[in-house]
Amino acid sequence: MKDSRNVYLTNIPLKEAQEQYLEVIDFSTVYGERERILTVDALNRITAKPVFAKKSSPSYNAAAMDGVAVITGKTHGATEINPIRLKKGVDYEYINTGGHIKDPFDAVIMIEDIVEIDAETVEIMEPAKNWQHVRPVGEDIVEGELIISANHQIRPFDIGALLAGQIREVEVYRHLRVGILPTGSEIIDVSDELQEGKIIESNSSMFAALVQQYNALPVRYPVVKDDYDLIKETILKLTEENDMVIINAGSSAGSKDYTVNVLREIGEVVIHGIATKPGKPAILALVKGKPVIGIPGYPVSAYFVFDFFVKPLIFSYNHQLTIQLPVVKATLSKRIVSSLKHEEFIRIKLGKVKEKLIATPLDRGAGVTMSLVRADGVLVVPQQCEGYDGGSEVDIQLYKPMEEIQNTIVSIGSHDMVMDLLGDKMRLHYNDLYLSSAHVGSLGGIMAMKKQECHIAPIHLLDAKTGSYNEAYVRQYIKEAPMAIIKFIRRSQGLMVQKGNPHSIKGIEDVISKKLQYVNRQRGAGTRILLDYYIEQLQVDTEELMGYEREMTTHMSVAAAIASGTADCGLGILSAAEAMGLDFVPVAWEDYDLLIPQEMLKDTKIERLLEIIKGQDFITTVEGFGGYDTNRIGEIILL
Amino acid sequence: MKDSRNVYLTNIPLKEAQEQYLEVIDFSTVYGERERILTVDALNRITAKPVFAKKSSPSYNAAAMDGVAVITGKTHGATEINPIRLKKGVDYEYINTGGHIKDPFDAVIMIEDIVEIDAETVEIMEPAKNWQHVRPVGEDIVEGELIISANHQIRPFDIGALLAGQIREVEVYRHLRVGILPTGSEIIDVSDELQEGKIIESNSSMFAALVQQYNALPVRYPVVKDDYDLIKETILKLTEENDMVIINAGSSAGSKDYTVNVLREIGEVVIHGIATKPGKPAILALVKGKPVIGIPGYPVSAYFVFDFFVKPLIFSYNHQLTIQLPVVKATLSKRIVSSLKHEEFIRIKLGKVKEKLIATPLDRGAGVTMSLVRADGVLVVPQQCEGYDGGSEVDIQLYKPMEEIQNTIVSIGSHDMVMDLLGDKMRLHYNDLYLSSAHVGSLGGIMAMKKQECHIAPIHLLDAKTGSYNEAYVRQYIKEAPMAIIKFIRRSQGLMVQKGNPHSIKGIEDVISKKLQYVNRQRGAGTRILLDYYIEQLQVDTEELMGYEREMTTHMSVAAAIASGTADCGLGILSAAEAMGLDFVPVAWEDYDLLIPQEMLKDTKIERLLEIIKGQDFITTVEGFGGYDTNRIGEIILL
Repeated sequence: MKDSRNVYLTNIPLKEAQEQYLEVIDFSTVYGERERILTVDALNRITAKPVFAKKSSPSYNAAAMDGVAVITGKTHGATEINPIRLKKGVDYEYINTGGHIKDPFDAVIMIEDIVEIDAETVEIMEPAKNWQHVRPVGEDIVEGELIISANHQIRPFDIGALLAGQIREVEVYRHLRVGILPTGSEIIDVSDELQEGKIIESNSSMFAALVQQYNALPVRYPVVKDDYDLIKETILKLTEENDMVIINAGSSAGSKDYTVNVLREIGEVVIHGIATKPGKPAILALVKGKPVIGIPGYPVSAYFVFDFFVKPLIFSYNHQLTIQLPVVKATLSKRIVSSLKHEEFIRIKLGKVKEKLIATPLDRGAGVTMSLVRADGVLVVPQQCEGYDGGSEVDIQLYKPMEEIQNTIVSIGSHDMVMDLLGDKMRLHYNDLYLSSAHVGSLGGIMAMKKQECHIAPIHLLDAKTGSYNEAYVRQYIKEAPMAIIKFIRRSQGLMVQKGNPHSIKGIEDVISKKLQYVNRQRGAGTRILLDYYIEQLQVDTEELMGYEREMTTHMSVAAAIASGTADCGLGILSAAEAMGLDFVPVAWEDYDLLIPQEMLKDTKIERLLEIIKGQDFITTVEGFGGYDTNRIGEIILL
Repeated sequence: MKDSRNVYLTNIPLKEAQEQYLEVIDFSTVYGERERILTVDALNRITAKPVFAKKSSPSYNAAAMDGVAVITGKTHGATEINPIRLKKGVDYEYINTGGHIKDPFDAVIMIEDIVEIDAETVEIMEPAKNWQHVRPVGEDIVEGELIISANHQIRPFDIGALLAGQIREVEVYRHLRVGILPTGSEIIDVSDELQEGKIIESNSSMFAALVQQYNALPVRYPVVKDDYDLIKETILKLTEENDMVIINAGSSAGSKDYTVNVLREIGEVVIHGIATKPGKPAILALVKGKPVIGIPGYPVSAYFVFDFFVKPLIFSYNHQLTIQLPVVKATLSKRIVSSLKHEEFIRIKLGKVKEKLIATPLDRGAGVTMSLVRADGVLVVPQQCEGYDGGSEVDIQLYKPMEEIQNTIVSIGSHDMVMDLLGDKMRLHYNDLYLSSAHVGSLGGIMAMKKQECHIAPIHLLDAKTGSYNEAYVRQYIKEAPMAIIKFIRRSQGLMVQKGNPHSIKGIEDVISKKLQYVNRQRGAGTRILLDYYIEQLQVDTEELMGYEREMTTHMSVAAAIASGTADCGLGILSAAEAMGLDFVPVAWEDYDLLIPQEMLKDTKIERLLEIIKGQDFITTVEGFGGYDTNRIGEIILL
């Protein structure tokens, strides 16, 4: 029982699970605990009572204009022909806007409408009406008036109104305490030193930030290892100390996933298993009447399960409607297939291309945090839906403001660290210019350009026939619109090998003959095409190259595989080898250029990009990396 | 010069002013100051450098599934007919998701695909592929990969990704310090005791909350009185201590408005006077190269000038696009006239009535903070526009989420504190039910209903012919759709008089005969109609009642006028008299009911409302106020 492998997971639709769970939760005990705080510190807090003004604002009759305070009775009959003279201190007093209108004065005449005769006398040409240009007591807020109701989240101008109504303290609910418990023997705390085979705990910090953002109080606890009794004891303690508890990882059904059994023993598991991807193994439980939520460990699943269940609970406690993300219509750039078994949440990159918003799905793996970091929004594929065809119009929930998306240059294609540098320089020079880089290889970039998913496509494609780069491929694949190439950088490609080159690799032929482990790039990557070119020249079969089938999507991940010792060699660029502390055997120089539709060249975003890459600052930095040549940078070739 | 009254204000269009001002500001010195903070504390901070991963994530080859780690070479040839048996510790090892795949293992077979023969042996029916079900080193994040660029605002999942990439500290810009200086001899600090003729300082607390909300650091200073040298000295000190300074009030051209002259002496006034309403007397200046903004004192002007100039400066410093409010289309319920002299910002109440979003302008006075508190959004009338006709479709910038607006019962009509109570009970019982109450008097309510601006209209209208309430008026004015009346409460109307009734007022006739000061309600108010009914019965002229022309829009403001001594008497309700410590001479009982279109009766929001007002909790509270009768509460009369 403590180590039982076969836990049955249900497959309950998300909405149903949310409703079922919310129904069994009773927050009412928490609401009893209130605190009086200073109004000036009350931003975003939730009122526990309606607030009525203690005093009127203004609390006295105040001049609404600069001018003179007068007694209406003494102004009767004044005309342009028969002006009336008033005596200072008796009939009038100078007054500024906001000044106190005291007895016997009962009106204000504007400064523009009086004639100063001398320091003691003014002349008026029109009678004053009773209380004219006077802000009466309570014009803004009247004593006893309702300023804000109970269960209201306090905004900046509420604070202004409360103070104007002489409310210096407000009664609010105390913050909801959300205990966050990371578990897992392979997990180490963020403050601990990383060890081989261990994973640094990052989800609980993300949860803490989310809890804070949603206006509750996060309480992070140290990692607890996979030990049934220890987990049980800790959860019991946490439910004492908090209003709600999040347990991260161990929610699945593996041999060390104790969470669900512990929760069954000490409380009630309302739901285990929801029909979503990611997020399936979520646990929704109650311990001593308090919500305890088991969240899967993969960071993307973790984010979504938090979003599905913890977020609405916090908003519900705060008596607020759960914030909904704004939704836009976008055109899907490629077909998406999704199972009928679950509702799927797919991270999306958006790009405004020719007035059309194009949605491109990002990596769907639950382990890829960067798919959240890079996402502009999320596409929800309902459970009853098998997916969407490319070109379909879909609803995207936005993670970023549309304005930012509209100011983003979307780049899809091959990766090089100069693209990171470019994005960074764009952010440094302009507050309203962003670069989004997706790395799908050069041919992937050309295909994305063909489908108008991107503004630029960084490519490095060797034409085997001519030995020249890029132009031939573009001419072959894109006939839809006139294209241009912005010459970018030349870079050195070579074989990345372990430090000291222990196998004395000089070329691909050595890797084959010595039966070493190669690690390849994905189909369509310029570097893969370069490899294929060499293999063809060697007249050998790809099967003779061990590891030809093992595909990585970036230079850096190839380098990482070599550095970790799971491969001996891979083709890549100097900067990747250097970043990973590998040796590098140069093989060729290649042109890494930016493909762009001609009509985009007049776009302000692209003009700014050109200005940046041609700038001395950018060129100096690139040259400093080593392995780069910037001779033709910024040159434009119309195809 | 120090006390010159005639300061010339320019009338520069807002957009121009914003651009001109932003152009002269140089924040670059501030950017030099950075701080290294813990990643876990970095929510919402702005990166000062791009951040690259220190380590890959995962940092080792990890199992992607629960199962057994195997050596691919030893699985070749396995089929259902010829399964292969593997020996524990030699050929396989049990492994959980996330577990470390150590040499010599190079693949994972899922738990579902193995057959346990005994504790030391498993059988497989299929060969494993190299690295299957293994998350390779760097699958999520590769060492050296760009996680986030410079000038990026850190979000919760960025924190997760940074930690996954072993980034435990990040370099961020320090917070922008915004110094907030309230000025004015009539102003007292929020912590001081209120005195006659003084105004409590509320704007700087609103500014502080806004600065905080926009991700900068507010620094509030004590009130400085209107003294040229003191103001000068203080501003100089504040520009030393802060990156930006806000001076509240004194920005106009009155005799005590020193700010602009001080700023001219110690710095440069870039702009004084913008073509907006509210907000015209804003001052945009530079002192020692730092932005110093003079903001007018009226709370609504103060809010808008902050929004026009301080907000974009903060966002600009933070390298972020200024947050734009979401915009919706709505139908204007009445004509709006605006001057060609300025761009006008009109607070708007929205109501979803029969699938149509109706926009009703709120009080346009710059002194009415409550118009901001009550607003759902703002309508911008451009300078070149004289206004809009009723029924026009206009763009409204939203202050609240649309979902909240859709869940709001819009009430327009007469005010009574039971409406405040109702709104409060609605918030207590439902997280997704809101009441918006606008107080325009009973006839105003009927007119609003006629134009479909509201869902319910609280009214108390005496039909002089029959002596009965409400029904006759509704039948006379509304013929567009079948109406209903929800019987609400009966309440006691009477003459509110000063404590002890010093003039021994027994009825309106005494007020007339004793030539006392009356204070009236606005045209269309039920209470005004009641007064007119009595005056008619007395067969006297309204001119004989002194103060008949002085109009207030609520019971409470009538009571406030009497309490402050500017009037002797006014008609109103018991609860208002009691709230203001006045005596009360009963005159009549009246029916205060809710007018509603019949078709709204089936609306969920209204069903909930009925449930609340018929509840014992509500009835007990109302009866407890005194002066109310709830006998027929909740009864529905179809007209």
